[in-house]
Amino acid sequence: MIFKELIKKKRDGRELSKEEIEFIVDSYTRGKVPDYQMGALLMAIYFQGLNYEEMLHLTDSMLRSGKTVTVKTEGILVDKHSTGGIGDKVSFIIAPVLAEMGFKVPMLSGRALGFTGGTVDKLESTGAKTELSQEEISQITEKFGFSISAQTKEIAPADRKIYALRDATETVESIPLIVSSILSKKLAVNTEAIVFDVKVGTGAFMKTQRRAEELAKGLVEVAKLYGKKAGALITEMSQPLGRFAGNALEIKESIDALSGKVEKDLLEVTASLVGLLFELTGRGSFKEGKKKAEEVILSGKALDRFIKWIEYLGGSPEVEIAKKKIVVEAPTSGHISSINGEALGYLIVELGGGRKKAGEAIDHSVGLGFLKKIGDYVEKGEPIGEIFYRLGDPTELVRKFLSAYKILETPCGKPAIVKKTIT
Amino acid sequence: MIFKELIKKKRDGRELSKEEIEFIVDSYTRGKVPDYQMGALLMAIYFQGLNYEEMLHLTDSMLRSGKTVTVKTEGILVDKHSTGGIGDKVSFIIAPVLAEMGFKVPMLSGRALGFTGGTVDKLESTGAKTELSQEEISQITEKFGFSISAQTKEIAPADRKIYALRDATETVESIPLIVSSILSKKLAVNTEAIVFDVKVGTGAFMKTQRRAEELAKGLVEVAKLYGKKAGALITEMSQPLGRFAGNALEIKESIDALSGKVEKDLLEVTASLVGLLFELTGRGSFKEGKKKAEEVILSGKALDRFIKWIEYLGGSPEVEIAKKKIVVEAPTSGHISSINGEALGYLIVELGGGRKKAGEAIDHSVGLGFLKKIGDYVEKGEPIGEIFYRLGDPTELVRKFLSAYKILETPCGKPAIVKKTIT
Repeated sequence: MIFKELIKKKRDGRELSKEEIEFIVDSYTRGKVPDYQMGALLMAIYFQGLNYEEMLHLTDSMLRSGKTVTVKTEGILVDKHSTGGIGDKVSFIIAPVLAEMGFKVPMLSGRALGFTGGTVDKLESTGAKTELSQEEISQITEKFGFSISAQTKEIAPADRKIYALRDATETVESIPLIVSSILSKKLAVNTEAIVFDVKVGTGAFMKTQRRAEELAKGLVEVAKLYGKKAGALITEMSQPLGRFAGNALEIKESIDALSGKVEKDLLEVTASLVGLLFELTGRGSFKEGKKKAEEVILSGKALDRFIKWIEYLGGSPEVEIAKKKIVVEAPTSGHISSINGEALGYLIVELGGGRKKAGEAIDHSVGLGFLKKIGDYVEKGEPIGEIFYRLGDPTELVRKFLSAYKILETPCGKPAIVKKTIT
Repeated sequence: MIFKELIKKKRDGRELSKEEIEFIVDSYTRGKVPDYQMGALLMAIYFQGLNYEEMLHLTDSMLRSGKTVTVKTEGILVDKHSTGGIGDKVSFIIAPVLAEMGFKVPMLSGRALGFTGGTVDKLESTGAKTELSQEEISQITEKFGFSISAQTKEIAPADRKIYALRDATETVESIPLIVSSILSKKLAVNTEAIVFDVKVGTGAFMKTQRRAEELAKGLVEVAKLYGKKAGALITEMSQPLGRFAGNALEIKESIDALSGKVEKDLLEVTASLVGLLFELTGRGSFKEGKKKAEEVILSGKALDRFIKWIEYLGGSPEVEIAKKKIVVEAPTSGHISSINGEALGYLIVELGGGRKKAGEAIDHSVGLGFLKKIGDYVEKGEPIGEIFYRLGDPTELVRKFLSAYKILETPCGKPAIVKKTIT
């Protein structure tokens, strides 16, 4: 096979075969193809796309470039993956809740990059160990019913190499490449079913419903072609999820939520994802699963499991929150009509709570609080948010926080939290 | 400026500014941008295109990466550029003919690559010197009224570097990139007017009228934006031009043509290009120019000038033609309905008369003769072509020659030689 001819084939909109995609991934990973040819191919894929079969082969080739994780435990192994957003702490709630219901949940998670946070960073704000071996993952999943740990470097190294090139060539946003990248890591674990929480809106990577649905369909269809039970929800991210965003603040909110003091939007997303897993695994209907999850959360039944798990990993649920706090007041009376989630995400990065580049250290203690959401009426001077910070000019921070909010005279409805189910 | 953001801008279909395009060309030429980012940008341009202003800036930036050629001579300096085809020896005829009419014609030409021949290689079959300094070009143009020599490496080095990357990344076929590449070299000479002979058909790079027109419009519009008088003809290349294709054979045919024994199609293309130059330079109407050119060619007036010029450059008009010759006979009676020019071009490459890779040596003596064209009726066994060769299996060569021809029972019209004029 000649790599250049494969570039031409895709450039002209033709389908690449399994063997051709394997050749592409293998030869690129082993350094046998120059970056410029791979970069041109990635851009051709950006424009011409990949069909589900091609995504499957790409996923599978990247997955097989590394090791897989076999979790040895009884029961139904399930997983949840979020495409990322502001204040998304669903993993910390859904994992112990599913475990409480008898599922086994071995989650592998990522770190913060760009304007969204990372589950592993949030967990590290407790001091817990996040790098686990395959044996530790099995043992902890067996003991607590769930495990959350960092993706190891041994999983899908081809994806890591290709992702770095995508980042340099502006081809990160290609949906088929996003699908294959996510799945090359998610399908490497021997789970039976997986639900995808595809976020849509200003605080998500997918800003439009159309793109979110395209991504959700890709994830579900390719996971099914691979042989997994899979489904997706498109959920609200035109504003932050829950009460707080920031590493330690989200651990604190997760503990509150697991003890029954849970924000409505966070409860809705978490319980709906459980509902979908019920349906997918044949454990019951969507409705039954959702109701059961709400009961477990509101009763506080899963809290103890979560706390014991953090302590077992060497962490403490008593996370440190930045001492300095500004209460942000509404500059005018009116109805909140929009919130720029990405701008809030970058404000957290600026506070030190996120990363501009992979590998940067972060300050777990900083973050934001959200007292009002889209559709809420606020009086001038009424508190609408909080800034937890260590450094920076308060006036400037407040200006940036408020620049993310639009307050209008005309009333405005509240967006649906779960917008669509894709199975 | 950040290169990655420029990739994104073009990827998203936005216009790049003059400064941005200069930054791209300068930083790439000076090795400050990795090939993979440039490769991705080229592929984005392949899909999103460039408008005429962007093509102008790209042309100008590549042109200014090298030296320009200032021909010091009195009179109206004009040029002709062909996009390449099979049997295209128009340069050797039009240059002395224009000189005979009082124009000054300093042409810089390329070498054979792929399925088409190169003017410089054809000239070298006479033994003439083809690498000339700026001073020599001026002096020869002054003395003979025209000069044909090889493009020097000092002209548009940025184009050469970018072309190599386009070749490796399957972005050669992008029309805006073709336009800028051609013009970065053609506009580097201080001519007043230029005509483009854009070939269309099986023996050309542009296989369809739509693409040929797109290329012709780009060449003309951008040359005009640069301040040149410019026009283009779309001409027939769904079959070879004239009686022969092959380096020495085309010199022989050029001498025949200049002595008045000229094939109709070759006369039509050459005279029409002169007509267009008349119109562009205000020397007269298209019709007048065309008629005048026909007179000069048919009277043999420009022949002596051509012969003297070859001899002045150290060459001889007595070129060596390969001794072995096969006459190819029609395998069946019928009307010639199509000829695959590209296949015939590659047959010449196989005979040794062309190049698969830049830098390869070639055999000037080999080539093909064409006795019948599209629309002609042939009897079974009637000669339709000739193969001049040194090595190879005659049966196999005849098979390949004939595989380029379709002979049908139903009559078929002759294609128009000049299909469109673009000014």
